[in-house]
This record gives sequence, C-alpha cells and structure tokens, in this order.
Amino acid sequence: MMNWKEIDTYAKQWIKEAGKRIRDSFDLELTVETKSNANDLVTNMDRATEAFFYEKIGERFPDHRILGEEGVGAEITDLKGIVWIIDPIDGTINFVHQQRNFAISVGIFEEGVGKIGLIYDVVHDELYHCFKGEGAYMNEVKLPSLKQVPVNETILAINASWIHSNKLVPKERLIKLVSDVRGTRSTGSAALELAYVAAGRYDAYVTLRLSPWDYAAGILLVEEVGGEVTDVFGEKIDFLKKSSIFASKPGLHQEMINTYFSKE
Amino acid sequence: MMNWKEIDTYAKQWIKEAGKRIRDSFDLELTVETKSNANDLVTNMDRATEAFFYEKIGERFPDHRILGEEGVGAEITDLKGIVWIIDPIDGTINFVHQQRNFAISVGIFEEGVGKIGLIYDVVHDELYHCFKGEGAYMNEVKLPSLKQVPVNETILAINASWIHSNKLVPKERLIKLVSDVRGTRSTGSAALELAYVAAGRYDAYVTLRLSPWDYAAGILLVEEVGGEVTDVFGEKIDFLKKSSIFASKPGLHQEMINTYFSKE
Repeated sequence: MMNWKEIDTYAKQWIKEAGKRIRDSFDLELTVETKSNANDLVTNMDRATEAFFYEKIGERFPDHRILGEEGVGAEITDLKGIVWIIDPIDGTINFVHQQRNFAISVGIFEEGVGKIGLIYDVVHDELYHCFKGEGAYMNEVKLPSLKQVPVNETILAINASWIHSNKLVPKERLIKLVSDVRGTRSTGSAALELAYVAAGRYDAYVTLRLSPWDYAAGILLVEEVGGEVTDVFGEKIDFLKKSSIFASKPGLHQEMINTYFSKE
Repeated sequence: MMNWKEIDTYAKQWIKEAGKRIRDSFDLELTVETKSNANDLVTNMDRATEAFFYEKIGERFPDHRILGEEGVGAEITDLKGIVWIIDPIDGTINFVHQQRNFAISVGIFEEGVGKIGLIYDVVHDELYHCFKGEGAYMNEVKLPSLKQVPVNETILAINASWIHSNKLVPKERLIKLVSDVRGTRSTGSAALELAYVAAGRYDAYVTLRLSPWDYAAGILLVEEVGGEVTDVFGEKIDFLKKSSIFASKPGLHQEMINTYFSKE
C-alpha cells in the first residue's frame, strides 16, 4: 500500500530545497530565453528546477510519473497511477523582472484524484500546503474555511490584459464584473493567485487560459478550504488540458458564473 | 539650522514602531467603517496610526506641520516650512481583506521640496527609504539607477477598473497600452506600486486619481533612482492636489505619454 505521508514529507522537503537553490541563484547570472512568443520566457532556473524534481522523484519513487511545464520527461496523456504535476517556476516574468512573486507549484494525483497540493512562495518562504481531507495550511497556520461574500465586497484577481483579448467571455461582461466588485488585483503568478484565494485574501480569481501545471496544486488548495473551482462556464477541470479557471468562495462561484460568464 | 539627519532618524524609528503596532493589532478586533462610498474603507488602525505620528512629531518637532489622509490635524493649504505628508495605511482594502500588501507612507518636504521619502511594507518588514541626493534603499540594499526599457518589455502596474471608468484618457488608448506591454500587475497600494517602480520591479505605474498622501513618498523614491513622475499629460505634480500619476523609467516616460496619454 502506498505510503502517502512519506510522499508528502519528501515533496515538502524537495520543494523547500528547490526554493533555496532558486534564492541562492539570485547572485548568479540568469539566462533568459523566449519560447513561443517574446513574452513567454524560460530561464535556466526553470529547467534546472524541473530537472531537480525529476531526479529526486525518479530515485525515490521510480513508478511515479511527472507532468511538468518544461517537458523534461515523457509525454503524459492520462492520470493513471501516481502523477506529479509540476511548475518549477510559476510566474517566470516576475522571476526575471522582480526576483519575487513567483512560486513552485506541485500537485500530486492518484488515479486522477488530487491528494497533495504545494505552492511555495520562494522569496517569502511561505509554503501553502494541503493533504486531501486534512485541511490547508500556510506554513504552520491552518487556513480557515472560506465563507460566502457578496459580489460588491469581492476582491477579484484578474489580469487587465484578458478583458479585451479573449474568445470566451464577451468583454462587456468582464467590464461590468470589474466595475461591480470592490477591487481588482493581479500578481502575475497563477499559483500564487490560487494560494491567495485559498488563504481568503482574494475572494475570486478568473483567468482565461492556463495549463495543468499552473493550476493543479492551486485547485487542490482552494477546494480543501471549501472553495469552488471550475472553468468559467462551470465545467469540471480536466487536469490534462489547458483551460479557463474560475476559483472563488462558495456561493459567489455560482452567482458570478450566472451573472457574468454563462453563455446565455 | 535644521538637522535633517535627526529628522530622518526619528522618521525611520517612528515608521517602524507604527508598523509594529499594526502587526501586533492583527490579533485584535478591527473596526471597519466606510467613508465617502462603500469601497472607501477606514479602520481604527488608520486613525490610531495617524494619531501616533501627530503625537510624536508634535512633541519632537512642534513647528512641523502634517498633511494626513485621516485629517487628524489642521488643514494644510501650502507647503511652507517643513511638512510631513502621511498615509497611515495605504491600501486599506488590502489591510482589511488580506492583512498584507499595505504600507505606511511618509514624505517630508522643506519649502515644497521633497527631502525624505519612506514607504514601509509592514508585513514583510521592508522599508523603502531615500534622503534627497543620497540614493534610495530597500532596508540596507541600495536600489540601482533605473535604465530605459522598450514598451514591449514593460511590466506595467495598472488597475483594471481604471480602463473603462476614467475621464482623462480614452479607453481605446489604455486598451492598446495594456496589449502592447509585456504584462500588467496590480497590488492595490499606490505607495507599494511606486516603491516597486523605484526598486525596478515594475517599469511603469499609471493611475488616474490619487491624493498627496498616496503618492508623496513614492514620487521622491522614484525620482531619487532616476525615474520620472508627472501626471498622465506630463505635467509636474502639485503636492497639495489630487492628481493622476504616471511614474516610469526614464525615456519610457516620454514615449508612453506621447503614444498613449497625450491629448492630441
């Protein structure tokens, strides 16, 4: 039988060690490359961090598989067995421009069901973590269950650039949403936006396209404290596909989908 | 003759002490009231922090005057003599919703000329500080002079809600701006956005209406590292008036005003 507590212990140890390596790298030279377009950056530290996890997981848990942003390993087309979904540096633009406000994101799944979610804010040494059914924490502090709030008291994480350049939600709806809420914020790391929703600092987060490594751990954290996560139309997330993501406090979730996102 | 080093020492001591009081208050009950509208919050800690500065400044420097957000003191209609411009908690909504991402902002002026700028990120214990002509620092780390960047590599701090609800810049221009830059961010504290520009983490910050206590210290910090700050039309800031604020790296400043903000 699988020892999940052992997996949890190693995952936390490795994410902290990977974070320390990144912090130590701040004094070294950073190599920045672009991927599909000029704003899709990748650094030597993204690749080195993902390789670090591959090495550690491969040694200790050789039958586990890994779905990672930098694609160091084999292609993953199903979630059979145990799969680690890893973003070595979520918020690479922040990493390059700010040397803060980025995170390592690790979600661990068993037969497609999320068991462990870890998001590590490397610079602030804040580890958001959950183990399915046992609550979510920031470091040693337990995160309270999320409570419903009305739309006009909502702090919404949304990136301004989505409002006018997406094919899913008419911009008039997003403009109304942005006017109706109490305030909008944008951190530039999907993993941290989701960790902030789990911690109750944002009431909702909406984004129009993310990859599994961006959202896997975050969804587990938000759900563990009673939040709801679907795509913007209320559909369940497929952890193997790119998707829009809408995470929010309970109650608010259905209200916002009905009012702002639904296709009718 | 005025001993500015003494003023600087006390100002730093008091901002740190005020920050500690706010951190200690997190376990106590918070009273939240609304001001002019439902989203303009003020707390007992805003008022207590401003009163703390009034008491300290009044005891040690009885001839200095204070312009503060909560208006504890007399009305200020000029900048003669020495004036402290204070925001006791900049980012009150973040303070209430997140217990982080807010700052104490203190700018000290002599005959209208900025001498000392202090922005204290209370939760992260990060003090951004400058003394005119002696450079700017985050804690003990000297902030490098800002260098020019092209628009398409710019990280721009802008709140999504401004794009459609302002009377100064046509929304089509702001939409183009948001599409042209590398990324947008929004922290929810003007003082921290300006401190981030001074620290080079954001390349530019634009907002359509701020009060003097929101921007006074931040402008001094950005200018001390070679950044430029005006209103969105390139006009000099009057530290007694509400104003739009556009702060950015040198070169980029004029380019963005010409391309996106100018009235012609």
